[in-house]
Amino acid sequence: MDDSDNTYATPQDAEAAFYAAFQNQDLEAMTAVWVDSDDAVCIHPMGERLSGATAVLASWARIFAGDGRMRFDIAEPIYVTDDNTSVHYIYENIHFGANFSESSQVLATNVYVRTADGWRIQAHHGSPLVAPSG
Amino acid sequence: MDDSDNTYATPQDAEAAFYAAFQNQDLEAMTAVWVDSDDAVCIHPMGERLSGATAVLASWARIFAGDGRMRFDIAEPIYVTDDNTSVHYIYENIHFGANFSESSQVLATNVYVRTADGWRIQAHHGSPLVAPSG
Repeated sequence: MDDSDNTYATPQDAEAAFYAAFQNQDLEAMTAVWVDSDDAVCIHPMGERLSGATAVLASWARIFAGDGRMRFDIAEPIYVTDDNTSVHYIYENIHFGANFSESSQVLATNVYVRTADGWRIQAHHGSPLVAPSG
Repeated sequence: MDDSDNTYATPQDAEAAFYAAFQNQDLEAMTAVWVDSDDAVCIHPMGERLSGATAVLASWARIFAGDGRMRFDIAEPIYVTDDNTSVHYIYENIHFGANFSESSQVLATNVYVRTADGWRIQAHHGSPLVAPSG
Protein backbone atom coordinates (compact mmCIF):
# COMPACT_ATOMS: atom_id res chain seq x y z
CA MET A 1 0.00 0.00 0.00
CA ASP A 2 1.29 3.37 -1.01
CA ASP A 3 0.77 6.02 1.63
CA SER A 4 1.99 8.78 -0.64
CA ASP A 5 -0.55 11.45 -1.41
CA ASN A 6 1.38 12.44 -4.48
CA THR A 7 0.75 9.67 -6.99
CA TYR A 8 -2.60 9.94 -8.67
CA ALA A 9 -3.95 6.87 -10.39
CA THR A 10 -6.63 8.70 -12.37
CA PRO A 11 -7.19 12.20 -13.78
CA GLN A 12 -10.08 12.53 -11.33
CA ASP A 13 -7.72 11.82 -8.42
CA ALA A 14 -5.37 14.52 -9.68
CA GLU A 15 -8.27 16.94 -10.05
CA ALA A 16 -9.45 16.27 -6.50
CA ALA A 17 -5.89 16.90 -5.27
CA PHE A 18 -5.68 20.12 -7.28
CA TYR A 19 -8.83 21.59 -5.74
CA ALA A 20 -7.93 20.32 -2.26
CA ALA A 21 -4.55 22.09 -2.54
CA PHE A 22 -6.28 25.24 -3.80
CA GLN A 23 -8.80 25.19 -0.96
CA ASN A 24 -6.17 24.41 1.69
CA GLN A 25 -3.71 26.96 0.27
CA ASP A 26 -1.17 24.15 0.39
CA LEU A 27 1.73 24.99 -1.91
CA GLU A 28 3.51 21.69 -1.32
CA ALA A 29 0.45 19.72 -2.37
CA MET A 30 -0.10 22.08 -5.30
CA THR A 31 3.49 21.54 -6.42
CA ALA A 32 3.05 17.77 -6.19
CA VAL A 33 0.02 17.71 -8.47
CA TRP A 34 1.47 19.84 -11.27
CA VAL A 35 3.70 18.51 -14.00
CA ASP A 36 7.29 19.51 -13.29
CA SER A 37 7.83 20.74 -16.82
CA ASP A 38 8.05 23.65 -19.19
CA ASP A 39 4.73 22.41 -20.59
CA ALA A 40 2.79 23.63 -17.55
CA VAL A 41 0.28 26.32 -18.53
CA CYS A 42 -1.92 28.34 -16.19
CA ILE A 43 -4.40 31.08 -17.00
CA HIS A 44 -6.09 32.55 -13.94
CA PRO A 45 -9.38 34.37 -14.64
CA MET A 46 -8.61 37.60 -16.56
CA GLY A 47 -4.90 36.92 -16.11
CA GLU A 48 -1.94 36.48 -18.40
CA ARG A 49 -0.91 33.08 -19.64
CA LEU A 50 1.80 31.63 -17.41
CA SER A 51 3.98 28.86 -18.74
CA GLY A 52 6.51 26.56 -17.15
CA ALA A 53 6.19 24.99 -13.73
CA THR A 54 8.29 27.70 -12.06
CA ALA A 55 6.06 30.57 -13.18
CA VAL A 56 2.87 28.61 -12.54
CA LEU A 57 3.85 27.63 -9.00
CA ALA A 58 4.99 31.18 -8.24
CA SER A 59 1.46 32.33 -9.09
CA TRP A 60 -0.03 29.84 -6.64
CA ALA A 61 2.41 31.02 -3.96
CA ARG A 62 1.15 34.59 -4.50
CA ILE A 63 -2.48 33.52 -4.37
CA PHE A 64 -1.93 31.51 -1.18
CA ALA A 65 -0.08 34.43 0.43
CA GLY A 66 -3.33 36.40 0.29
CA ASP A 67 -5.93 35.98 2.98
CA GLY A 68 -8.79 35.05 0.73
CA ARG A 69 -9.85 31.54 1.60
CA MET A 70 -12.08 29.89 -0.95
CA ARG A 71 -14.19 26.79 -1.14
CA PHE A 72 -15.00 25.05 -4.37
CA ASP A 73 -17.97 23.09 -5.54
CA ILE A 74 -17.20 21.52 -8.88
CA ALA A 75 -20.22 21.06 -11.09
CA GLU A 76 -21.29 19.70 -14.46
CA PRO A 77 -18.01 18.06 -15.43
CA ILE A 78 -17.39 16.99 -19.00
CA TYR A 79 -14.43 14.61 -19.32
CA VAL A 80 -12.74 13.93 -22.64
CA THR A 81 -10.14 11.29 -22.00
CA ASP A 82 -7.73 9.17 -23.98
CA ASP A 83 -4.84 6.99 -22.83
CA ASN A 84 -2.47 9.75 -21.79
CA THR A 85 -4.44 12.97 -21.78
CA SER A 86 -7.67 13.88 -20.07
CA VAL A 87 -9.37 17.23 -20.54
CA HIS A 88 -11.96 18.31 -17.98
CA TYR A 89 -14.44 21.12 -18.57
CA ILE A 90 -16.05 22.16 -15.31
CA TYR A 91 -17.89 24.87 -13.48
CA GLU A 92 -16.16 26.06 -10.34
CA ASN A 93 -18.75 27.40 -7.90
CA ILE A 94 -16.51 29.40 -5.56
CA HIS A 95 -17.51 30.49 -2.08
CA PHE A 96 -15.52 33.15 -0.29
CA GLY A 97 -15.74 36.05 2.14
CA ALA A 98 -17.11 36.02 5.68
CA ASN A 99 -18.57 32.57 6.38
CA PHE A 100 -18.06 31.85 2.70
CA SER A 101 -21.30 33.69 2.08
CA GLU A 102 -20.23 35.25 -1.22
CA SER A 103 -19.94 33.30 -4.40
CA SER A 104 -18.81 33.49 -7.97
CA GLN A 105 -18.55 31.14 -10.86
CA VAL A 106 -15.58 30.31 -13.05
CA LEU A 107 -15.44 28.12 -16.12
CA ALA A 108 -12.34 25.97 -16.13
CA THR A 109 -10.62 23.76 -18.64
CA ASN A 110 -8.16 21.48 -16.86
CA VAL A 111 -5.76 19.25 -18.75
CA TYR A 112 -4.28 16.17 -17.06
CA VAL A 113 -1.47 14.07 -18.48
CA ARG A 114 -0.19 10.65 -17.54
CA THR A 115 3.41 10.79 -16.35
CA ALA A 116 5.84 8.24 -14.95
CA ASP A 117 4.55 9.38 -11.55
CA GLY A 118 0.86 9.05 -12.32
CA TRP A 119 -1.56 11.69 -13.54
CA ARG A 120 -0.66 15.35 -13.07
CA ILE A 121 -2.30 18.59 -14.04
CA GLN A 122 -0.59 20.15 -17.04
CA ALA A 123 -2.90 23.09 -17.63
CA HIS A 124 -5.54 25.12 -15.86
CA HIS A 125 -7.49 27.75 -17.81
CA GLY A 126 -10.03 29.63 -15.74
CA SER A 127 -12.27 32.37 -17.02
CA PRO A 128 -15.13 34.40 -15.61
CA LEU A 129 -18.55 33.24 -16.64
CA VAL A 130 -20.38 36.50 -17.13
CA ALA A 131 -19.36 39.99 -18.14
CA PRO A 132 -18.76 42.32 -15.19
CA SER A 133 -21.44 44.97 -15.07
CA GLY A 134 -20.48 48.61 -15.56
CA MET B 1 -4.17 13.30 -54.12
CA ASP B 2 -7.02 14.31 -51.93
CA ASP B 3 -8.62 17.57 -52.92
CA SER B 4 -10.90 17.60 -49.90
CA ASP B 5 -10.46 20.56 -47.63
CA ASN B 6 -12.10 18.65 -44.82
CA THR B 7 -9.53 16.06 -43.79
CA TYR B 8 -6.79 17.46 -41.65
CA ALA B 9 -3.61 15.47 -41.31
CA THR B 10 -2.28 17.35 -38.31
CA PRO B 11 -3.66 19.35 -35.41
CA GLN B 12 -1.99 22.41 -36.93
CA ASP B 13 -3.90 21.88 -40.17
CA ALA B 14 -7.15 21.69 -38.23
CA GLU B 15 -6.25 24.85 -36.33
CA ALA B 16 -5.50 26.73 -39.56
CA ALA B 17 -8.88 25.59 -40.92
CA PHE B 18 -10.64 26.68 -37.74
CA TYR B 19 -9.28 30.22 -37.90
CA ALA B 20 -9.80 30.43 -41.68
CA ALA B 21 -13.45 29.48 -41.19
CA PHE B 22 -13.77 32.02 -38.36
CA GLN B 23 -12.20 34.77 -40.48
CA ASN B 24 -14.24 33.89 -43.56
CA GLN B 25 -17.47 33.48 -41.56
CA ASP B 26 -17.82 30.15 -43.34
CA LEU B 27 -20.23 27.95 -41.42
CA GLU B 28 -19.76 24.97 -43.71
CA ALA B 29 -16.01 25.01 -43.19
CA MET B 30 -16.51 25.56 -39.47
CA THR B 31 -18.84 22.56 -39.34
CA ALA B 32 -16.27 20.43 -41.16
CA VAL B 33 -13.49 21.15 -38.70
CA TRP B 34 -15.45 20.43 -35.51
CA VAL B 35 -15.96 16.97 -34.09
CA ASP B 36 -19.49 15.81 -34.85
CA SER B 37 -20.08 14.71 -31.30
CA ASP B 38 -21.61 15.43 -27.93
CA ASP B 39 -18.02 15.95 -26.74
CA ALA B 40 -17.71 19.30 -28.52
CA VAL B 41 -17.17 22.13 -26.02
CA CYS B 42 -17.02 25.83 -26.80
CA ILE B 43 -16.57 28.76 -24.44
CA HIS B 44 -16.62 32.13 -26.16
CA PRO B 45 -14.99 34.97 -24.20
CA MET B 46 -17.19 35.78 -21.18
CA GLY B 47 -19.78 33.34 -22.48
CA GLU B 48 -21.49 30.26 -21.17
CA ARG B 49 -20.08 26.82 -21.78
CA LEU B 50 -21.71 25.25 -24.83
CA SER B 51 -21.58 21.51 -25.30
CA GLY B 52 -22.44 19.20 -28.13
CA ALA B 53 -21.82 19.91 -31.80
CA THR B 54 -25.34 21.22 -32.37
CA ALA B 55 -25.12 23.94 -29.71
CA VAL B 56 -21.56 24.83 -30.64
CA LEU B 57 -22.32 25.21 -34.35
CA ALA B 58 -25.45 27.23 -33.59
CA SER B 59 -23.21 29.71 -31.75
CA TRP B 60 -20.96 30.06 -34.78
CA ALA B 61 -24.01 30.61 -36.98
CA ARG B 62 -25.07 33.47 -34.68
CA ILE B 63 -21.59 34.98 -34.71
CA PHE B 64 -21.34 34.76 -38.50
CA ALA B 65 -24.80 36.34 -38.89
CA GLY B 66 -23.39 39.53 -37.34
CA ASP B 67 -21.53 42.00 -39.49
CA GLY B 68 -18.36 42.07 -37.44
CA ARG B 69 -15.56 40.76 -39.65
CA MET B 70 -12.42 39.84 -37.81
CA ARG B 71 -8.88 38.94 -38.69
CA PHE B 72 -6.68 36.80 -36.52
CA ASP B 73 -2.99 36.73 -35.89
CA ILE B 74 -2.12 33.71 -33.81
CA ALA B 75 0.90 34.22 -31.59
CA GLU B 76 3.08 32.40 -29.09
CA PRO B 77 1.63 28.94 -29.52
CA ILE B 78 2.35 26.22 -26.98
CA TYR B 79 1.49 22.75 -28.26
CA VAL B 80 1.12 19.78 -25.95
CA THR B 81 0.53 16.77 -28.13
CA ASP B 82 0.22 13.04 -27.79
CA ASP B 83 -0.95 10.41 -30.23
CA ASN B 84 -4.63 11.28 -30.27
CA THR B 85 -5.00 14.60 -28.49
CA SER B 86 -3.27 17.91 -29.05
CA VAL B 87 -3.85 20.92 -26.84
CA HIS B 88 -2.87 24.34 -28.16
CA TYR B 89 -2.48 27.41 -25.96
CA ILE B 90 -2.37 30.54 -28.08
CA TYR B 91 -2.82 34.26 -28.15
CA GLU B 92 -5.41 35.46 -30.63
CA ASN B 93 -4.57 38.98 -31.75
CA ILE B 94 -7.89 40.04 -33.24
CA HIS B 95 -8.30 42.94 -35.65
CA PHE B 96 -11.75 44.35 -36.33
CA GLY B 97 -13.69 47.51 -37.11
CA ALA B 98 -13.16 49.89 -40.02
CA ASN B 99 -10.07 48.80 -41.95
CA PHE B 100 -9.45 46.34 -39.14
CA SER B 101 -7.89 49.20 -37.23
CA GLU B 102 -9.13 48.11 -33.81
CA SER B 103 -7.68 45.20 -31.96
CA SER B 104 -8.13 43.03 -28.93
CA GLN B 105 -6.46 40.00 -27.49
CA VAL B 106 -7.96 36.70 -26.43
CA LEU B 107 -6.26 33.75 -24.77
CA ALA B 108 -7.42 30.49 -26.24
CA THR B 109 -7.06 26.86 -25.32
CA ASN B 110 -7.93 24.70 -28.31
CA VAL B 111 -8.19 20.93 -28.06
CA TYR B 112 -7.79 18.78 -31.17
CA VAL B 113 -8.52 15.07 -31.36
CA ARG B 114 -7.66 12.46 -33.94
CA THR B 115 -10.77 10.96 -35.53
CA ALA B 116 -11.39 8.47 -38.30
CA ASP B 117 -11.61 11.55 -40.55
CA GLY B 118 -8.38 13.17 -39.43
CA TRP B 119 -7.86 15.79 -36.75
CA ARG B 120 -10.80 17.89 -35.63
CA ILE B 121 -11.28 20.58 -33.05
CA GLN B 122 -13.06 19.23 -29.99
CA ALA B 123 -12.89 22.28 -27.77
CA HIS B 124 -12.31 26.02 -27.96
CA HIS B 125 -12.03 28.02 -24.74
CA GLY B 126 -11.47 31.72 -25.29
CA SER B 127 -11.13 34.29 -22.55
CA PRO B 128 -10.31 37.97 -22.42
CA LEU B 129 -6.77 38.78 -21.47
CA VAL B 130 -7.23 41.82 -19.26
CA ALA B 131 -9.99 43.10 -17.06
CA PRO B 132 -12.27 45.58 -18.81
CA SER B 133 -11.83 49.02 -17.31
CA GLY B 134 -14.78 50.75 -15.67
